[in-house]
Amino acid sequence: MNSSDLTIAIVGATGAVGRIALDLLADRNHPADKVVAMASARSAGKQIRYADTEITVIEATPESFENVDVAFISATSEVSKQLAPEAVKRGTLVIDDGSTFRMEDSVPLVVPEVNGADVEWHEGIISIPNCTTTPLVMVLDALRSISPITAVTVSTYQSVTGTGAAADAELMAQSRAVLDTKDVEIAEYPHQIAFNVLPQVDDFLANGYTKEEEKMLNESRKILHEPALRLSSTCVRVPVQVSHSESVAVEFQDSVSAEEARNALNSADGVLLVDEPSNSVYPMPLKAAGTDEVQVGRVREDIAHDTGLNLWLSCDNLRKGAALNALQILDEVLKRDRLKPSKVAAVI
Amino acid sequence: MNSSDLTIAIVGATGAVGRIALDLLADRNHPADKVVAMASARSAGKQIRYADTEITVIEATPESFENVDVAFISATSEVSKQLAPEAVKRGTLVIDDGSTFRMEDSVPLVVPEVNGADVEWHEGIISIPNCTTTPLVMVLDALRSISPITAVTVSTYQSVTGTGAAADAELMAQSRAVLDTKDVEIAEYPHQIAFNVLPQVDDFLANGYTKEEEKMLNESRKILHEPALRLSSTCVRVPVQVSHSESVAVEFQDSVSAEEARNALNSADGVLLVDEPSNSVYPMPLKAAGTDEVQVGRVREDIAHDTGLNLWLSCDNLRKGAALNALQILDEVLKRDRLKPSKVAAVI
Repeated sequence: MNSSDLTIAIVGATGAVGRIALDLLADRNHPADKVVAMASARSAGKQIRYADTEITVIEATPESFENVDVAFISATSEVSKQLAPEAVKRGTLVIDDGSTFRMEDSVPLVVPEVNGADVEWHEGIISIPNCTTTPLVMVLDALRSISPITAVTVSTYQSVTGTGAAADAELMAQSRAVLDTKDVEIAEYPHQIAFNVLPQVDDFLANGYTKEEEKMLNESRKILHEPALRLSSTCVRVPVQVSHSESVAVEFQDSVSAEEARNALNSADGVLLVDEPSNSVYPMPLKAAGTDEVQVGRVREDIAHDTGLNLWLSCDNLRKGAALNALQILDEVLKRDRLKPSKVAAVI
Repeated sequence: MNSSDLTIAIVGATGAVGRIALDLLADRNHPADKVVAMASARSAGKQIRYADTEITVIEATPESFENVDVAFISATSEVSKQLAPEAVKRGTLVIDDGSTFRMEDSVPLVVPEVNGADVEWHEGIISIPNCTTTPLVMVLDALRSISPITAVTVSTYQSVTGTGAAADAELMAQSRAVLDTKDVEIAEYPHQIAFNVLPQVDDFLANGYTKEEEKMLNESRKILHEPALRLSSTCVRVPVQVSHSESVAVEFQDSVSAEEARNALNSADGVLLVDEPSNSVYPMPLKAAGTDEVQVGRVREDIAHDTGLNLWLSCDNLRKGAALNALQILDEVLKRDRLKPSKVAAVI
């Protein structure tokens, strides 16, 4: 089956990720009459750009999925929780961007380059990982082909579009206020983000980690099929519009040279080695934005751990971190002829 | 001896650090006629604010140190290399902010809270550490009182004033250009810094680390008197004006609880525990700017290493990272009555 024969709904079409999903569908020449832009009642009736035409946003309701083959939901957790089961009931394959279903046993959590085969056992819903997890597991998957991974330490540099379009607008408004020495208005984050960094993404847990940091651990374990993986992260918001970056220290069972690591990364699908430090060539959010690959560089042997490596990555959080990964999951589903669920979904 | 009896020169008085040094001297009521503001010939003759008066900048030359008791040099490496020995020859104690002399065996490298006694063996020059090293060693020193440290992994979030006043101006100019969708001019860094992050601070070495990252290792070893300390860092520039932040993973010989760590940090001189995550209270560059302490928070047990801790710090790079540390070194020298060198300096 060809994806252009399918009616695809984008739920959250007016959001930061939704708009990219529409752009990606348009790039694939998906027919406009087979695209359904859905959003909350507030946005219903809006005209939204699609390729060289405009389509009308409709309100996402249970009934709106009636003739939809595939729905990509990128909205709040509440929206996913309410609408995904309704869509599944109506025979729609749901590819969900939220955290609601990711850790459910009946829901595959998929990065096609890493665990594409997991789409085979879906029961109507396939989740995509958090936008910091996706690039990380792609890199870890490439590296574990050399030697088993024993520990991972990550510090992130996350852009504001990971929060959404409103946070992006707030960064820009705050930046202008600072430049004009005016009062800064704070709404999206607990503190000013312009010209600042916040060592908090999502809420805190009792163990001192945030939910974002817990997600990175649990999702990596599920995608990599390594339930005992050891991984600790510090997730930090930085005043960047698009693309998340990560400083990653990986420890292995055996010694791994930087050269071996570069070769493994270079031959990994979806990974682009950007590693010419002497020419100041390395991944940066500004260069990763708008591109499809996980950019990896600064690959070097860890001087603090005998069998460790350090590296740096940047990845567009709206594309591979969200919308692109969703479309690639659909491709994987079609390739494996698994549009219909492997079995009738249990009550979710 | 009282420091206010001394004639103190600030070399680089018009720079980002020099201005703060003047502010700190003014806060201490150091008499204006005992402050000598020095800079390059280009700035000579400029009037510069000092307390509620103005002083005239003079050109820094060998002769300009004739009646100077203490000189704080915060300029280029070239200036330090040329002028520090000339000042020492004239009986001036040099406290140097550059990297030129830091690793010399005859030059103490001092953070008073950690290794104040090292000022005793100076031969005319005392170096202050790089602005990312200072807060880190203060935290590591507090923590090693609980258990020996076996490895440290650091990722930094460094502000542009670490580069200097021109880089700060460039960040602001670039930010305005982006907001106004105009062309961005790049001079201070290899790439745009506004709304971007650069995983490069200083030049690259053959092993893939930067000089900044090498400095953090070597300087920490010297200050902590731990020549075998294992420490790996990734130094990253972020679009922040003042204060460097660091995400730090510390591994210990024995298990260390977050509670023990908080207690040790809480009782360490110059360290301020800012750690109430449930109220979104943690160190941030915007809050650390203009303060004297190293702010530490997000202290938690490392879920990837059995005997590890993770934490986060922010510290004003111009104050404790530079000018304040220099004045505290002078205090330490006077307390120990070591204004004059321990021996006549060898040829430096």
